[in-house]
Amino acid sequence: LAQPRTVNAARLHASLADLAQIGATEGGGVTRLALSDEDRQARDLLCDWLRQAGLIPKCDDLGNISAVRAGREQGPPVLLGSHIDTVVRGGRFDGALGVLAALETLRTLDDLGIETRRPVGLVSWTNEEGVRFEPAMTSSGVVAGRFTAAYVHDRRDRNDHRFGDELRRIGYLGDPANRPSAAAYLELHIEQGPVLESLGLAAGAVGGIVGITWNEVTITGQADHAGPTPMPLRRDALTASAEIILGVERLARERDETAVATVGRISAQPNVINTIPGTVTFSVDFRHADPAVLEELVARLRALVDEVARRRSVIANVDRFWTSEPTPFDPGVLGAIRDAGAALGIELSELWSGAGHDAKYLAEICPAGMIFVRSRGGLSHCEAEFSDPADIEVGANLLLNTALALAEVA
Amino acid sequence: LAQPRTVNAARLHASLADLAQIGATEGGGVTRLALSDEDRQARDLLCDWLRQAGLIPKCDDLGNISAVRAGREQGPPVLLGSHIDTVVRGGRFDGALGVLAALETLRTLDDLGIETRRPVGLVSWTNEEGVRFEPAMTSSGVVAGRFTAAYVHDRRDRNDHRFGDELRRIGYLGDPANRPSAAAYLELHIEQGPVLESLGLAAGAVGGIVGITWNEVTITGQADHAGPTPMPLRRDALTASAEIILGVERLARERDETAVATVGRISAQPNVINTIPGTVTFSVDFRHADPAVLEELVARLRALVDEVARRRSVIANVDRFWTSEPTPFDPGVLGAIRDAGAALGIELSELWSGAGHDAKYLAEICPAGMIFVRSRGGLSHCEAEFSDPADIEVGANLLLNTALALAEVA
Repeated sequence: LAQPRTVNAARLHASLADLAQIGATEGGGVTRLALSDEDRQARDLLCDWLRQAGLIPKCDDLGNISAVRAGREQGPPVLLGSHIDTVVRGGRFDGALGVLAALETLRTLDDLGIETRRPVGLVSWTNEEGVRFEPAMTSSGVVAGRFTAAYVHDRRDRNDHRFGDELRRIGYLGDPANRPSAAAYLELHIEQGPVLESLGLAAGAVGGIVGITWNEVTITGQADHAGPTPMPLRRDALTASAEIILGVERLARERDETAVATVGRISAQPNVINTIPGTVTFSVDFRHADPAVLEELVARLRALVDEVARRRSVIANVDRFWTSEPTPFDPGVLGAIRDAGAALGIELSELWSGAGHDAKYLAEICPAGMIFVRSRGGLSHCEAEFSDPADIEVGANLLLNTALALAEVA
Repeated sequence: LAQPRTVNAARLHASLADLAQIGATEGGGVTRLALSDEDRQARDLLCDWLRQAGLIPKCDDLGNISAVRAGREQGPPVLLGSHIDTVVRGGRFDGALGVLAALETLRTLDDLGIETRRPVGLVSWTNEEGVRFEPAMTSSGVVAGRFTAAYVHDRRDRNDHRFGDELRRIGYLGDPANRPSAAAYLELHIEQGPVLESLGLAAGAVGGIVGITWNEVTITGQADHAGPTPMPLRRDALTASAEIILGVERLARERDETAVATVGRISAQPNVINTIPGTVTFSVDFRHADPAVLEELVARLRALVDEVARRRSVIANVDRFWTSEPTPFDPGVLGAIRDAGAALGIELSELWSGAGHDAKYLAEICPAGMIFVRSRGGLSHCEAEFSDPADIEVGANLLLNTALALAEVA
């Protein structure tokens, strides 16, 4: 292994702080929705920084911004990146860390006068969050062939503003010829969960993105007066739902330690204090790295719902309406991250991502991988999101050295 | 015992059918909200019928309509009544039965040339349902001294229309001197529950109105991504709530066969499919005839909530915000109903009302009682509400003979 290199952490922290000013919230977070005025300001700053680093920012027809530092050879770059849009009152590091650590990698290569075999590039993907324009990860999705540009341009926000029109309005509707290519893709991101913290580790190599399947459960009982209906004669849709919600939790807990199940959304009808709920609908979100386990969890959910419905004389329906298959990352990229950790003397955990990232789509078109840094309290998508500067430095050094290794591979 | 008398059932059914035309819905029900144009039409029809029966309808400052058939002696009448307002898409009999069976009683007394010692009166209370103007039972409440007329006149509906203004608009803002008085009060009503049906009985004598206590439970956990948070590290406000909801059901089932507990209203925050609920609030409605049991149920709820909160590391709060004490009806009136049943050869059950009725407030100022008739499927407050004509006839005959007995008592 080559001698590990290190980034200029002070410069990285300063850039993160500067970017966090754009859309800064009173609570110490950031609101920088995709294609908003704040997004434009952030893009302008990123492009300035790229030019100051001697690079030429390019913008494609989705507003994806990329820049490439030349290598000894032609061809697609080792691409590093993430996103700079945020959720409403989100954190300072979600997305921003991956883009600015990529920038810091390019700056460090220049500082150290390093020439790589392959080019090394940076990308900032448009609308990763999907908060303003659904679905999430639209623009890496187009590059991976999941969506057409026309489909994405026609997405509308709550005020009926078109994605394509907003992209033009902020001056970032570019050329399809500028869509980024990649020999490999690497994304540094905050974990957004509590696993690294619970292990006492600063960073981890991401084994893949778990599969997700979404179900809508509807329970129909009988809405009745809360007073005159004795307990044994009730067909209460909410008590039936409560049994299923606890059963769903048990399904994940009993499966294995990586399975998760969440009932996040619930609504009762008529939702009145003195009426027994007649209808309750709720969502069930299952996540696991193994597609067979996802199938098993859904089958067990159906069996659970049927058993409760029969026993409680209610009618039940399970609608499995969306599935995102598990995406294991490239073993070669994973190995390079592990090697970088070893060279830097950093103990790494391997964990799977429970949330989606642009790397999921990139994995469909090139070897891809992700590095996570520890999130304090596991918090994310909130103003209290925080990662320690020392952990961020660890993550950036892992990114730099992994990128160097990938850029040299034959 | 005197020979039992019987009403003209065909006339009663015809009047019920006529009244049900006013505000009739496509689904076979009635929408006749308090102080609406439909309520005015129904009041006009009731007053016509009273005049045709040789009576003088009087209207008080709450819009309560009453009329009295003279007895041999002066003094307050044995008052029979209920209400003619309905919920949205309610049934044909809820309230209307009690008013029109009272009318049929007065008509029958004339038909049979019966002279009673005490006067016998009819009352139709304004705004029993409390759907348009909260709270319910406003106008019997004023007569019982629970509310002032000024308070009730200032109630506003969703469109900010004042009760008092609407009362004047429909022409039924009368004189406080016309508030009805009562030596005793008797209300025939549909059961609105399944107990009589489950017992195979047409009618029942009501022992009283159960006590009700309302609680709001708030569970605060930690909202987190559904993906990256392993099951053991979650502080899920909804799974904690589901445990409590099932525990609340168990509290009532295990207490005794008359205790009921209902979680009718629930809301989760942020209520998003891929976020672990951080906060859940839900209502708990307990009902029982014994005030000590109500206290016990609330104490057990608090213990249950504390235990679940401690075990699941969530913060919980129970706010007991409203209580309506149990109201047992007058033993003399109950005895008169039982005697009437025996004379008519009708088997009666004694059951408590789980819902509020105007009779609850009347019980505070005079001996009061209620008679229930069987509800098909226990359904009420819906278009499918139904009571068999034969059961209605049984109820009306009970009302007539109980009223006769009460009107003769020294």
